[in-house]
Amino acid sequence: MSEFQLIANYFNQPSLTSVGESPAELGIGDDCALLSIPDQQQLAVSIDTLVADVHFPAEAAAEQIGYRALAVSVSDLAAMGATPSWFTLALTLPEANESWLAEFAKGLSCAANQFGIRLIGGDTTKGPLTISIQVQGIVSARQTMLRSNAKVGDHIYVSGTLGDAAAALDYVIPQPMLSANDTPTIAFLYQRYFQPEPRLLLGKQLATLGVNCAIDISDGLLADLGHILEASAKAEQPLGAQIDLTALPISQALVSQTNKAQATHLALTGGDDYELCFTASTELAQQLSPLVEAGEITLIGNITTQPGIVDNQGQSIMVTHSGYQHF
Amino acid sequence: MSEFQLIANYFNQPSLTSVGESPAELGIGDDCALLSIPDQQQLAVSIDTLVADVHFPAEAAAEQIGYRALAVSVSDLAAMGATPSWFTLALTLPEANESWLAEFAKGLSCAANQFGIRLIGGDTTKGPLTISIQVQGIVSARQTMLRSNAKVGDHIYVSGTLGDAAAALDYVIPQPMLSANDTPTIAFLYQRYFQPEPRLLLGKQLATLGVNCAIDISDGLLADLGHILEASAKAEQPLGAQIDLTALPISQALVSQTNKAQATHLALTGGDDYELCFTASTELAQQLSPLVEAGEITLIGNITTQPGIVDNQGQSIMVTHSGYQHF
Repeated sequence: MSEFQLIANYFNQPSLTSVGESPAELGIGDDCALLSIPDQQQLAVSIDTLVADVHFPAEAAAEQIGYRALAVSVSDLAAMGATPSWFTLALTLPEANESWLAEFAKGLSCAANQFGIRLIGGDTTKGPLTISIQVQGIVSARQTMLRSNAKVGDHIYVSGTLGDAAAALDYVIPQPMLSANDTPTIAFLYQRYFQPEPRLLLGKQLATLGVNCAIDISDGLLADLGHILEASAKAEQPLGAQIDLTALPISQALVSQTNKAQATHLALTGGDDYELCFTASTELAQQLSPLVEAGEITLIGNITTQPGIVDNQGQSIMVTHSGYQHF
Repeated sequence: MSEFQLIANYFNQPSLTSVGESPAELGIGDDCALLSIPDQQQLAVSIDTLVADVHFPAEAAAEQIGYRALAVSVSDLAAMGATPSWFTLALTLPEANESWLAEFAKGLSCAANQFGIRLIGGDTTKGPLTISIQVQGIVSARQTMLRSNAKVGDHIYVSGTLGDAAAALDYVIPQPMLSANDTPTIAFLYQRYFQPEPRLLLGKQLATLGVNCAIDISDGLLADLGHILEASAKAEQPLGAQIDLTALPISQALVSQTNKAQATHLALTGGDDYELCFTASTELAQQLSPLVEAGEITLIGNITTQPGIVDNQGQSIMVTHSGYQHF
């Protein structure tokens, strides 16, 4: 099978190329795709690579690999408050295995339809299984959420529950007897890893409300909150965070699969949840309260002037917990 | 070294992030980069992956790998008549080898400055050496060159000389005794592979003159001209091409390193030259003649109504020559 047959058979299909509300001026099939950006809008772009057996188990179902690859990339758009529009796929494969490709494309297409993002181009090459996806989204120039906008006194919030995907990686996926069709607890954790839900709607709601500082949690809460602190600190104003460990949103499934201490550790350090962490001035607390009451977001702490991340007793929680190390 | 130190040490540097004329609204360091596109302009995007020992020799100098990776991606912008603006880099590395990274970044930076394109984001991951680069460029909505615009009777032109990079791969690079500092012939072929020259200025000149059909030659002339024929053919109007084999632009270096027959074969089938192949109506011939006289472009044939690619005697030249097969 040539590269061109492969693209025609699996990727240049309406279920991937005619998705969402943003047609491209020119899609798959030329040297470049061509995009038009609406007036007063900016293009948000992010590229992510997933390597087999580093970022996902190589033996996982191809459909799950495809879905998850697009979901984790789209999560970066959610963290900017952007609306997904277009993506490109650079797929490196050891061989053109037709059933693997069909399943991979199925998962990719499912995610593309879920998030309203269409495939506009890519590159398929022979080599060790590696997936790079660049997502493009549209965002209003006046409503962007940056890592560098946290201020002393801001509340710190997270969406959803934390630690589930890490628990799936530690406890569920290594046990081949368990599967997505197992008990509800196992199924929930399994899904949290393989079908992360980019918080697109929430991201846009937050940006509209005036929240201007957010990140998605891919490396773990401590690591990603650390990125916010680092990006927002200034020479004359160092920043830190105080976290109420008892407030961390932890799912019943996670507690039942581990214990309270382990669950807290995973919630602080586990990556792959793709929930949002954001900060907001206390003046926004009232406007955010409906989302808190609905359980969509949880207030977990505050931005302080003391460098580091501490618990309510002032004890550093960086010493005992650390995030994902890439190298 | 963490991923973040690696990015700070080698990639988040002015020699990569402050290049060219198109500032990004937001560059490296957040969930997404943010771009603004000028009115009446479109964004041209293309992603390319290079896998070690598939698309380049893994043991090549890191500086050459970096330069070439960006050059071959930018070539897709040249083929659209677009001006390079921004690129993202998804770099997968077996280990964070500091001297390799420094040399790779040096080559990348050299190419970025050469082509006026700035680094706005990326992803660094651990795994088998793989480089995906997405380039973004700006193009006037009224001056795009597509593969699908060839017409019966059009002249077919190519830029530069063909087959040099393939000769380098076949004859020069496998001989470790030879190097870029060898005889001028060897140095020329070596450079043609490792420092391909995206035809950016020519691409824009052609688009301005009204040329509306182009492709860059990455898989070989026959394969890439075949893409033009396939994209431009319609049910009621099949297309083919007649090529004057004696007109193919072949460098002295290529002839001296091979012989006439081998040189012609490499010119027809060798990829990696990143020259442009384009078609133009005969009415543009006069406007194109200064480029022909300057040796920048060469008229090699015509678009015909007979499917296939034939020589001046009407003999098919697809039977004996085929392009690069990706799988």
